[in-house]
Amino acid sequence: MAEGPNEMSSYDNHYIAVDWGTSRMKAYLCEFNDDLCVTILDEVTCAGVQKKRGEFAQTFLRATAEWRLKYGALSVLMAGQIASSIGWRESPYVACPVAPADIIEASISFSCEQHDIFMLPGLSCQLANGHFDVMRSEDVQVLGWLQAEPSHRQGRYLICLPGTHTKWVLVNNGIIEVFKTAMTGELYDLLSTSSVLIQSAAVDFDQNCFDEGAQYTISSVSGSLIHGLFSVRTKQLFEGMDANQASSYLSGLLIGSDVRAAVNAQEWDISVLNGIVVVGEDHISRLFQQILQSQIAQVSLYAGKLASVQGFAAIRQRQLVSQVF
Amino acid sequence: MAEGPNEMSSYDNHYIAVDWGTSRMKAYLCEFNDDLCVTILDEVTCAGVQKKRGEFAQTFLRATAEWRLKYGALSVLMAGQIASSIGWRESPYVACPVAPADIIEASISFSCEQHDIFMLPGLSCQLANGHFDVMRSEDVQVLGWLQAEPSHRQGRYLICLPGTHTKWVLVNNGIIEVFKTAMTGELYDLLSTSSVLIQSAAVDFDQNCFDEGAQYTISSVSGSLIHGLFSVRTKQLFEGMDANQASSYLSGLLIGSDVRAAVNAQEWDISVLNGIVVVGEDHISRLFQQILQSQIAQVSLYAGKLASVQGFAAIRQRQLVSQVF
Repeated sequence: MAEGPNEMSSYDNHYIAVDWGTSRMKAYLCEFNDDLCVTILDEVTCAGVQKKRGEFAQTFLRATAEWRLKYGALSVLMAGQIASSIGWRESPYVACPVAPADIIEASISFSCEQHDIFMLPGLSCQLANGHFDVMRSEDVQVLGWLQAEPSHRQGRYLICLPGTHTKWVLVNNGIIEVFKTAMTGELYDLLSTSSVLIQSAAVDFDQNCFDEGAQYTISSVSGSLIHGLFSVRTKQLFEGMDANQASSYLSGLLIGSDVRAAVNAQEWDISVLNGIVVVGEDHISRLFQQILQSQIAQVSLYAGKLASVQGFAAIRQRQLVSQVF
Repeated sequence: MAEGPNEMSSYDNHYIAVDWGTSRMKAYLCEFNDDLCVTILDEVTCAGVQKKRGEFAQTFLRATAEWRLKYGALSVLMAGQIASSIGWRESPYVACPVAPADIIEASISFSCEQHDIFMLPGLSCQLANGHFDVMRSEDVQVLGWLQAEPSHRQGRYLICLPGTHTKWVLVNNGIIEVFKTAMTGELYDLLSTSSVLIQSAAVDFDQNCFDEGAQYTISSVSGSLIHGLFSVRTKQLFEGMDANQASSYLSGLLIGSDVRAAVNAQEWDISVLNGIVVVGEDHISRLFQQILQSQIAQVSLYAGKLASVQGFAAIRQRQLVSQVF
């Protein structure tokens, strides 16, 4: 019988990595070369957990059908909200501080049409004020950044991961110590589409208006966000901003507020870090970098997709051959 | 010909007061007695500006049809978003500081089926940071409170008006000096219905959870709101809060943040006021009062509906007989 969709794969160097979040699922078909460097052979995206409730197996199988035809049922690594209580299977939360190896060991596994699926756990931590925090899948990007250079695993780094929720992650000698979540991206989406502040969708980014918003919140006294948001409307009434410019101004207000809170967080001392790194998509990462650099020294960038793929690769390597971290 | 809907009214002591906001229109049929005290004879409510775009005359005439049958076409005072660029007619913004008389003089008037309609202006001001702020109709409540007692027109008072947007208004010797807007109510609505924080609608208010949220933001260092909001979710994951309790906790977080910003505002010195008054509906007013009193001395309450009706009455009196303010 020919190799087909229901056959285990003999392609040991191939696997599928899936970052399946609330709003989007990104799947990568990956291959290791002889040096254990990873190549992305193909990738697909589709709607996230929120849009596909209860149709997860079907969604996964449809998205990866071509790969299965060619390679059989490859092993799969999955992370994100897909592993939460509203996802396909629920994996546990592992409490920080955690080493990368602890994350891998807390994975759950199950089969789907002969695919071995490894669902990574979430991470939890307790903040200085006693509140808990959680993340799912951003830690894979942190792992990807950690394994990129031996120097990343020595010293204290603050990793900023912009997104629907910004995650600020403190790593110390390769251990994820603690992290904080800000609702920045979600607030932007809600306020720019469903509030009185802005009446029409943004079409372009306006750097000057972004700077004006960021400058306001980054340099403000406490409490400026809840009292400052309304300026998004009054700048359109009295200062000639159009709705498009107001969207960039709002983005600046929110990111400025987020960065200000991170710079002043009780969980770390920003002045005694070995580095600050923004891991994410290029445009949004540069905005965070710009505001961070207005407050502190050099901030570096690291591509979010690269970090994600490298993080999954490091986990897969550990499964296959030896200890990577 | 009998008096009917298209006749001018001979009921000089009667008038209609309309607070027509974004989400709700409230119309009161009012009558002065011989001492110029006002009685509400009847009242109606219907959907606000957002739901009735372009059908304003029709909506008003339908809502007040019974009154017109009985009293003819009474004079009408209107305030709120109905007088904004997205309303029926646009009245100007009057810049603070303003005396009550200035507000009345900036009204615009027009006719609708023999009703004389007086549309009150909006108010604008410039904040310490140079931003502008605006309000429409809350100033009518401030006028109502001002005319309730001669002592209210002597000294400095901070008036807090909770609502979709909280307005904090500084009055000094009867003059509206400056005010600030917070998006508190609108943020609560967006975050409790359309975000990842809460998955089902609140059914009850939980005082303990409210207190916990308020305590967190009122006593926190700067920036806690954008980083603190996610605790609404993690308290459900790790601390056993249900969605209902989480809604009250979120309300506490937001109102605590709003009050903290007001207490620390650059536009006034909270320690040299003659009084702080919360003007609004009973439940929400008591929540603001409670948090304010945890920070400063005695805070009094004043019923929002009473303030509104008295404010319109003071304006009507001035039109009819003499200077009230």
